[in-house]
Amino acid sequence: MSLVGFKAVHFSGIDAQDVEAPGFKGVEVRWLITKDDDATNFAMRLFKIKPGGRSAQHSHSWEHEVYVLEGQGLVFCEDDETRIEPGYVVFIPPDVPHYFRNVGDEPLRFLCLIPYKK
Amino acid sequence: MSLVGFKAVHFSGIDAQDVEAPGFKGVEVRWLITKDDDATNFAMRLFKIKPGGRSAQHSHSWEHEVYVLEGQGLVFCEDDETRIEPGYVVFIPPDVPHYFRNVGDEPLRFLCLIPYKK
Repeated sequence: MSLVGFKAVHFSGIDAQDVEAPGFKGVEVRWLITKDDDATNFAMRLFKIKPGGRSAQHSHSWEHEVYVLEGQGLVFCEDDETRIEPGYVVFIPPDVPHYFRNVGDEPLRFLCLIPYKK
Repeated sequence: MSLVGFKAVHFSGIDAQDVEAPGFKGVEVRWLITKDDDATNFAMRLFKIKPGGRSAQHSHSWEHEVYVLEGQGLVFCEDDETRIEPGYVVFIPPDVPHYFRNVGDEPLRFLCLIPYKK
């Protein structure tokens, strides 16, 4: 029986999109679990940042929960940069300026989850 | 400056706890991001299931968002078992019987995120 709502797929089967926003360079995102899956509380995204790439410094009213899968990076939050590598767990609170940078020779890959507003 | 709420740590720095619930065998959990970090919407946990280990078949009113990091497993949801391996993304809807089993020779490691009730 096929169950509506259950999903188990390899991430590579989910389309990647380039992030075209100002200040983003070499950043690609896959929306792994979203409202389209009936996930009404939070979304799971997978980011890949190419060597030399980065996200723009920005802030917003929701938090990020991050787990680093591959690569070497820096996460900037308010006025500190912290080195991150595979196995790192990052929590970025709401309304705090932040960005991610790849500082290695391989892609930086991390999960980044965000809440849906109620 | 140290920022209240921002967190960036390797998962190995967070304590692991054995899951002692009935029907769980060889299962360990680390609560990576929780309400104690001011994460009010959802929690990030890291599970490790030893070879031969499993979680109990159970169901509850909240969903799971899962990303498989290491190992070979099966996820059961309602009446289907699906093979999972690194890079697999799993969404388990609320109120559906489910379990995880390690069917490989190495630990099965996966992130499993759950919402906080409002």
